[in-house]
Order: sequence, then C-alpha cells, then structure tokens
Amino acid sequence: MSQRDPDLRRRAAAVVPGGMYGHMKADMLPEGYPQFFERGDGCRIWDVDGHEYIDFVCSYGPIVLGHRHPAVEAAAARQLASADCQNGPAAVFVELAERMVDVVPAADWAMFCKNGNDATTLCVTIARAATGKRKVLAARGAYHGSLPWCTEFRTGVTDEDQAHLIHYTYNDLASVEAAREEAGDDLAAILVSAFQHDAFVDQALPEPAFARRLREICDRTGAALLLDDVRAGFRLHRGGSWEGVGVRPDLSAWGKALANGWPISAVTGVDALRRAATRVFATGSYWFGAAPMAAALATLEALDASDALGRMRAAGQTLRDGLDAQARSHGFSLRQTGPVQMPMVLFEDDPERATGNRFCSEALKRGVYLHPWHNMFLCAAHTPDDVKQALERTDEAFAALRRSR
Amino acid sequence: MSQRDPDLRRRAAAVVPGGMYGHMKADMLPEGYPQFFERGDGCRIWDVDGHEYIDFVCSYGPIVLGHRHPAVEAAAARQLASADCQNGPAAVFVELAERMVDVVPAADWAMFCKNGNDATTLCVTIARAATGKRKVLAARGAYHGSLPWCTEFRTGVTDEDQAHLIHYTYNDLASVEAAREEAGDDLAAILVSAFQHDAFVDQALPEPAFARRLREICDRTGAALLLDDVRAGFRLHRGGSWEGVGVRPDLSAWGKALANGWPISAVTGVDALRRAATRVFATGSYWFGAAPMAAALATLEALDASDALGRMRAAGQTLRDGLDAQARSHGFSLRQTGPVQMPMVLFEDDPERATGNRFCSEALKRGVYLHPWHNMFLCAAHTPDDVKQALERTDEAFAALRRSR
Repeated sequence: MSQRDPDLRRRAAAVVPGGMYGHMKADMLPEGYPQFFERGDGCRIWDVDGHEYIDFVCSYGPIVLGHRHPAVEAAAARQLASADCQNGPAAVFVELAERMVDVVPAADWAMFCKNGNDATTLCVTIARAATGKRKVLAARGAYHGSLPWCTEFRTGVTDEDQAHLIHYTYNDLASVEAAREEAGDDLAAILVSAFQHDAFVDQALPEPAFARRLREICDRTGAALLLDDVRAGFRLHRGGSWEGVGVRPDLSAWGKALANGWPISAVTGVDALRRAATRVFATGSYWFGAAPMAAALATLEALDASDALGRMRAAGQTLRDGLDAQARSHGFSLRQTGPVQMPMVLFEDDPERATGNRFCSEALKRGVYLHPWHNMFLCAAHTPDDVKQALERTDEAFAALRRSR
Repeated sequence: MSQRDPDLRRRAAAVVPGGMYGHMKADMLPEGYPQFFERGDGCRIWDVDGHEYIDFVCSYGPIVLGHRHPAVEAAAARQLASADCQNGPAAVFVELAERMVDVVPAADWAMFCKNGNDATTLCVTIARAATGKRKVLAARGAYHGSLPWCTEFRTGVTDEDQAHLIHYTYNDLASVEAAREEAGDDLAAILVSAFQHDAFVDQALPEPAFARRLREICDRTGAALLLDDVRAGFRLHRGGSWEGVGVRPDLSAWGKALANGWPISAVTGVDALRRAATRVFATGSYWFGAAPMAAALATLEALDASDALGRMRAAGQTLRDGLDAQARSHGFSLRQTGPVQMPMVLFEDDPERATGNRFCSEALKRGVYLHPWHNMFLCAAHTPDDVKQALERTDEAFAALRRSR
C-alpha cells in the first residue's frame, strides 16, 4: 500500500510538464493529498493506494448526484450502445435543449459545448454580435475559465487578449459604475458569477441591489447580462442560481453539475439574443456527442425526482453547523462563507493558511477529503449518516490540530 | 419512415438558435442530408429514419477505427466502471502520456485537454510563455478552431482578438518571408496544419521546401513551430503527420482520431518547451476524465495492431481511383486532392458546387454518405468490400447525374 501514488508521480514527472497541471495539480494541496484516484461511488472516493475518503470536493463540482450514479451511467451506456460522436447530433440533443428551456425560466433556447469556458466564451461572442459593441465588465478575481481572454494567470497571455475586459469588484456598486463609465458607449456585456466564489478568500452571495443594478445597466444600455452559472448551476436553484435573487440574465453559461461528470457545457439565452446566437460560428469536434447529453437528461431528472437540492442544502447546513461547533470547542474560529452546498472553510488569523492546511491534512488522514482554499461541493449522495461520520472524523482532526499547536 | 428527421428539425428550430449550429448544421449540406443520426457500426451509420449509409465523413474525423469499435468501447466501459471525472487524474493519464511520448518522435511530454481548439490555444500560449514574444504566423484560411483568437468567422470577434496573428499562404515561401518580416523581433510561433485542408478548395500536401523553411525560421529566431495535427493526426503517419515530411515540430496539437470519438485532445512538445509548459495555467473541469484516456490508449493500440493506417490508405486509394474512372466514363472531370485517407472531391467547372452537391445527393440516396466541400475521412473499418459496394453506388449516382444534366 501507499506505493502507487509516488510511483505514478515519478512517472508523470518524466512525461507531463511539472508532473501535472491545472486545478488538479496536487502540489497545490497540503501534505498527504493523493495525486491519483482509482474509484468513486456515491460520496466516497478511493485513491490509487486504496485509501477511502468521504468526498467534499466532488471532482470540483461535476459530481452532483454522487459518483457513478446508476441512472446517469445507465442512460449514458444506453446511448453509447447506439452512438455518441456522429456526423450530426442524435435525437437526445433536441430533448435536452427542450428540457433546459423547460427547467430554466430565463432560457428560450440552448446550445451545447464541452468546456465551461466554451460556454462563457460563447456568451461573450453572442453579446458582441448582438450589440456590435466590445467592452465586457467582469469581476476582478472571478474565474470564468483558463482561456487567454479571461484568465488571471497571465503567463503566455498578451495585453490584447484582454483589451476589452474591464474589471469591477463583486457586490461593489461604485466599482460597477466606474467600469460602466470606462466602457462608455461600447458596452457589450456584464459577466457575473452566480456568487463570489474566488479561490483563497471568503465567498459572498450577490447582494440584491448589486444584482438589480447590473440588470438595470443592461436594460438601459442594451448590453447583455451574462450569468456564469458553470460552477453553481443546478446546485443552488433548479432554474438558475439567480432565480432566488429575482434577477434574470440574458445569457447563462452552464457546465459541471449538468451531467454529473460527463463532459458537456451549455449556453442558454433569451429570445432577444436568438438571432445573434444564430449568426455566431462556434463548434467543436465533440460538442454534439450524444452520451453526455443522455447523461445530462438523466441528471436533470434525478435532481428533480429526489429533491436533491433540498438534501444537499440540509447536508451542507449540518456540516457547517457541526464544523463551527467543533472549531469553537477546540479553541479555533472558522470563517465559513458562501452557500452551504458549496462551502468555503477558512480559519481566522491564518493568512498563510498553515492552520487550514494542517486541519485538512488531519481530516484527510481520517478519510475526509476537504479543500483548504477552494470552495467545496456537497452532492446529493451525502446522507445524514455520511455527514455525521465525516463530522466524527473532523472532530478528531480538530483535536489533533489542537494538540499540535 | 422519413418522419423523425423533419419532426426533430421542427422541434430544434424552437429551442436551438438556427435549429442547429457549427459544422453539424445540415442546412449547409445538399438536399436530402439528414440532420439527426441514430446509430453507427463500423463504417456504417443510420439516420433517425433508419436509412443506412456507408460513412465517408466519420464524424468529421474522430472515428478512425470505425463506429463503436469493440476494443475501444470495452476499454472506456472498464474505466467508467471505476471512475471518470475525479478529484485528480487516474493512472491511465500517466500511461497515455507515456504512450504519446513513445509513439510520437517529436514528443518529450504530453498534456491532455478536451477540444482540438484547447490544444491549439495551449500551443500558442506555451510558445508565447517560452519566447516572451507575441506574434503568431498562421496560414490564411486554415482552420485551427472556432475560438475568437483564430476563427475566420468574425461575427462577435474583435480586432484585438487576432491582433498578433499574421497570415501567410500555405506552401508560399514568399508570403512566409513577408509575414516573418512583419513580425519583426516579436515572433513567438509559426502555426501550420499538417496539410492544407481548408473547406471548399483543393487540398495540398506540404511542400518539403516550405516545411523546412518554417523549421529554419523557428531555429534561427527561437520561435516555436506548432503543428496543428488535430485533423490529420493518427491517419497519415503513426508518429505525427510531418514524420513523412522529415520536419519535426516543437509542439503538436492532437484531437479527433486520438480516441475514436471519445472527447479528448492533447498537446505534445519537446524538452526545450517543457519549462514554459509548466509555467502556463490551463485547465478544464473535464480535461482529466479517465474514460476518454482509456479509449485513447485502446485506439492507439488498435491502430498499431491492425495496420490501420496502411489499410486506410489502400481503401482511400481504391476509392479515389474508382471515382476518377467513373467520373471519366460518365463524362465528368473530378479534382481529387489531399491524402487519399482524407479525400477532397470537387468537380471541375463547378464554381457554385451545383454539380458536386447533386452528385452527393444522388450518392446519399443510394446509401453513400459523402461530403461535397469538406475533406472526407476514411477509417480502418472500410474493408475492400465496403469500398467496392460504395463505388457500385457512386457509379449509379454518376449515371443519375449525367441523366439529369
């Protein structure tokens, strides 16, 4: 045991730059985190050395019903038995588009693509096509994908890639007005995440006045309001994360939870932008693959049939309350922010995250997979018993943390 | 029969902009082409109304072994039974990277992503990171993806998106020198397709002097030579399409045939660019999915085990010779260009493509799925008998074409 992960890391170091890349590079995680995984089942995962964990990262979002959800896997397998990637879409394409329009009040139409970043890019392109304008307002520090036009990591990126991006601060109306002014009469769109879910910092829900003001600016200028619901979509609200806020976007970008791990993303939009969407050319070799669409249909069905969102919220609340009480009883103070279904857990007075890292390492040793600086994800497979068991283990992790300081 | 396709089109028109989009929009094809497909098996496909076709488009390239190749589907199913999209990659990630490095002489390392366009984008970003320069030379009319930085369709695209792209003409050395001069001392990369495979026009193989000159310019200036092998990779040559040309790229973009329809793309590169690749941040929610990697490993194995490339070339040659003889015997003159495994079939004196369109419609009626203006794709499932049967039908299509003019 405990030999396969280091061995695979050695092999990867030879044939992969840096040994691994992107958000899955285990070097960015605390001591003890595995790089390679073997298996998932419900809310449980196993690394390549056979260690079992209760998973609160859920593949960074895609897993919303639990790993290898039987109905989703069966639907994908049925589709695969006929065809996946063909000379044209399968019937399931139309069924899924109809379902999206049915489920999402702000959707009159849908398009499907592959990466979440394909969807955010398509939103911006459609907005520019519709308005004939160029400037896009986006929140400083918000993640909308890793493509050069929107990434915060500027290595290999030119200034021109982001020439028409103007930043505001999430929930800060004055910064929005300043950005709007800078755009002048060239404003194509305002891009906004479902809530502020930047890495490393406290999360924040959208303030109603902030959300309403973005809508007003778009209504007044003809710009498009683009909701990036890739990370939060189908976890917070069945019909789009801003349904609870009472503000409807013109275009929404979806991904992650849409197909419980199968690779598909989507754009939905209102009728006013249908013509612009028709004029834009966007495509990909795998965008019309039918198996992920069948998986998405099954995912949306299962979400509805089982009150998955309500159960995720309840599990998330239990986890938050439990962690909070444990932290206090062990003499720590947590900052838990964001929606309970997508929790961010940081420690007070922990600017270098040393305490948070140590806590996560102690939890990991005890079979609970937490994330020290990225929002986590509950899924519908987290039963009350799973959360209870996770909390028993985190209590021991807090105790170990206390002993070690 | 013949009712499901029009019915699905009506439903799609309500919920999808333009009824469909991208390269799979059947409106761009001649009369009679179905929009929706039901099933594939080997080199045969069935539309949603049960019509069977011998498929010479192969999902625009991904299908290289034949639809639903048993070994590939079994490998993916085995991986799916454990996990696909997880908190980190599976062991198969390392195995596939090792295999790519083993198979591709110009590869010292590999990264995996989802769209072909993810791979071409990553190549450009790595080249800019390595050189600290910005300009990228690319052939006018070449397709490297539909993202704003490289698309020829400019609706919704800003000038700044392509500010550092300088065009040359494929195989035209003077135009390359002019582009190089325009880049001055700011040249980051030269991007070049495996061969000239633009839509609507004759294809051209790379002239050795052209390929060598691109290599020389890169060697002299420190720019990176980026081979876009997304469309041609693993069809022309086992180790990269320019292995036969004798010129090795610094970075290659792969996709399509890599996993016989499963969604995965890749970048491979030489050691000199490994550090730059490590410094770039690029990622995606589904990039580390294990099932497409298992499918890719099985595809590469099957390609080798069965002399797939040799058989594709033979089948393509038989098709080309047969079509040529038939055309002449019926009084038509064809322009067949490009590699025989990826044929482009155009008619002489057919500037509006009316003749080509009619011929394809006649072939389609007889169960042969051809493409009138995009390069086609042979696959390893095209047996001599399949090609013979296809040619019997195309002979009838030519006869019908002759009768109708």
